[in-house]
Amino acid sequence: MIKVTGYAAKHSFSRLKKYEFEREEATAHEVEIDVLYCGVCHSDIHQVKNEWSNTVYPCVPGHEIVGRVTKVGPAVRRHAVGDLVGVGCMIDSCGACEPCRCGDQNYCASPNSWLATYNGPMQPKAKAGGENIYGRDNTFGGYSNLLVVKEDFVLKIPAKLKPEEAAPILCAGVTTYSPMKHWNVKAGDKVGIIGMGGLGHMAAKLAKAMGAEVTVFTTTREKIEEAQRLGVDAVMEDDKKALERLATHFSFMLSTIPEKHDLNPFLELLQRDGVLCVVGALEPLAPVDNQPVAFKRRSVAGSLIGNLAETQEVLDFCAEHGIAPDIELIRMQDINDAYKKVENGDVRFRYVIDMASLKEEIDEAA
Amino acid sequence: MIKVTGYAAKHSFSRLKKYEFEREEATAHEVEIDVLYCGVCHSDIHQVKNEWSNTVYPCVPGHEIVGRVTKVGPAVRRHAVGDLVGVGCMIDSCGACEPCRCGDQNYCASPNSWLATYNGPMQPKAKAGGENIYGRDNTFGGYSNLLVVKEDFVLKIPAKLKPEEAAPILCAGVTTYSPMKHWNVKAGDKVGIIGMGGLGHMAAKLAKAMGAEVTVFTTTREKIEEAQRLGVDAVMEDDKKALERLATHFSFMLSTIPEKHDLNPFLELLQRDGVLCVVGALEPLAPVDNQPVAFKRRSVAGSLIGNLAETQEVLDFCAEHGIAPDIELIRMQDINDAYKKVENGDVRFRYVIDMASLKEEIDEAA
Repeated sequence: MIKVTGYAAKHSFSRLKKYEFEREEATAHEVEIDVLYCGVCHSDIHQVKNEWSNTVYPCVPGHEIVGRVTKVGPAVRRHAVGDLVGVGCMIDSCGACEPCRCGDQNYCASPNSWLATYNGPMQPKAKAGGENIYGRDNTFGGYSNLLVVKEDFVLKIPAKLKPEEAAPILCAGVTTYSPMKHWNVKAGDKVGIIGMGGLGHMAAKLAKAMGAEVTVFTTTREKIEEAQRLGVDAVMEDDKKALERLATHFSFMLSTIPEKHDLNPFLELLQRDGVLCVVGALEPLAPVDNQPVAFKRRSVAGSLIGNLAETQEVLDFCAEHGIAPDIELIRMQDINDAYKKVENGDVRFRYVIDMASLKEEIDEAA
Repeated sequence: MIKVTGYAAKHSFSRLKKYEFEREEATAHEVEIDVLYCGVCHSDIHQVKNEWSNTVYPCVPGHEIVGRVTKVGPAVRRHAVGDLVGVGCMIDSCGACEPCRCGDQNYCASPNSWLATYNGPMQPKAKAGGENIYGRDNTFGGYSNLLVVKEDFVLKIPAKLKPEEAAPILCAGVTTYSPMKHWNVKAGDKVGIIGMGGLGHMAAKLAKAMGAEVTVFTTTREKIEEAQRLGVDAVMEDDKKALERLATHFSFMLSTIPEKHDLNPFLELLQRDGVLCVVGALEPLAPVDNQPVAFKRRSVAGSLIGNLAETQEVLDFCAEHGIAPDIELIRMQDINDAYKKVENGDVRFRYVIDMASLKEEIDEAA
């Protein structure tokens, strides 16, 4: 066993605090990773607060992880000691179901679905008929100094990317990239991005690099200029005249708002056969009026992160196109304040934890 | 001008009564039709009662019309006097917009959209910036003895179909056929049909003829056996165990329920990338939980009737496969009672008005 230090929440109402635990040594196909950076995703907050009613405590969040390989199991072929690597939302899947065989581990159809980087199987034992193919009811994520992960679930960080900037690509990046690829966003397409936070600003950058004409919708006046600096159009969500002008404009829209919201004002902005895909919220949304949906054969869809191949693809795509998320580095010890700011939309645009701060704390305690 | 007799509602709260009005003589490209049969669609009731807040009174409903050509304009090429023909929901469209040029008149993108068989342009003048390309604020439908329609919007009724049974194919048939074709329903597919009324029972027959494995969901116990007589599976909507067994079973589901309803119990029944298309209700639906949607990249879509080519296609398809809606013939004079029964789900499965009854009434009055 390896002694590990992380930051955990013990209850839905508790702040994150230093937490010591153990990880199993790397087995044949696993690699050990010294964590350098970990992004702060809005879903970390949902999970810590048990807002999806499925949190297993203690909860060590973190699924936008960049680090350096420090050990490899004897059968590991993909990675070597010293490699800069990344780990996203998943660390295992059944490998046998139809989606897994198609490479869509993020839609693993086994009773437990995939194994999340933190919080254990997506479908815990109780929801999977008492079964747990992973043998682990809980998993501890990247808010920690060390990780052990199956090599197939470890991504390569391209040399052109700064490690700290690569971290948010592993969730915010692939979560927005995957649906844009799936619904075939291409050069010249008109794409609308609803919300401009961690996911939204990455979506805007990615869509622009794909050659799309991008418009961002925001409720924060200051973000209008920030979007324009990214080279995309921006509209206030409550600007009714602007919304009217954009009627039937978009072939694809992506909602990145991380909570319940009303899609109706955006439905009219879709072309015939247009798709509005919701990736931010995992909860009941406001009632959708089927009249604008049916009248132009529109669709409201959802999408969940992306598969491993897409995750590597978006990392490489970002390196190739010189794209990186806008980040603010924080110390591990400032995580509770950071959560408050994320909830208030007061971050431009993604906090990334510099794990050097955690290691200092470990050294001081030693 | 031609004197015509129909049945009209004068207000949202009034019963349908005999109503005399005039139609323009057939111009060069128009045909005059002696109406033989007209189906009773649930949307006739919504429209009469102004439940979509857009009814123009007096309202002469009826858009499932079968009749015989009695006159043709000099330029008419498609139809001849004596032909058995049909008219569905549309009698004109702009012909110039992108959807019209693609043959999708039902998604006409002109400011007035298409011209409905009754109730005038889909987008009336006030909603179309004061414009009305059709020059008609109201139109009178098939609850009448005679119709004059542009030849392009007149369908051919195949000889193998009984005229009275062909009528509901012109709306209930094509409304369910079009989305099944669009989302590529094919032999071996597992298709779920929610609701088993006028649309639902046609959807079940069509999907079965396409070679799909069909399951119907109903709230009416007696319809279970009726569905089984059609050779399809049937499940009570509140049978939780049956719903659980059908989790991730369907690639395509069609909701034909003609009013606000909850889609959530059906979302889990869709496969990954499955589509639930809503054709019955044109109003805000109950809130949809994005968790089951996103977790399997499902879509909730809508679709509006079908285009002219699809309408001819479904008529021919029904003739070829020996499919017909189950109908109950009624007299024009019994329409108000029939509406009550439709609202109570007390019809198996479509009322069709025999226009001989209206003609008797006209003769008696003469």
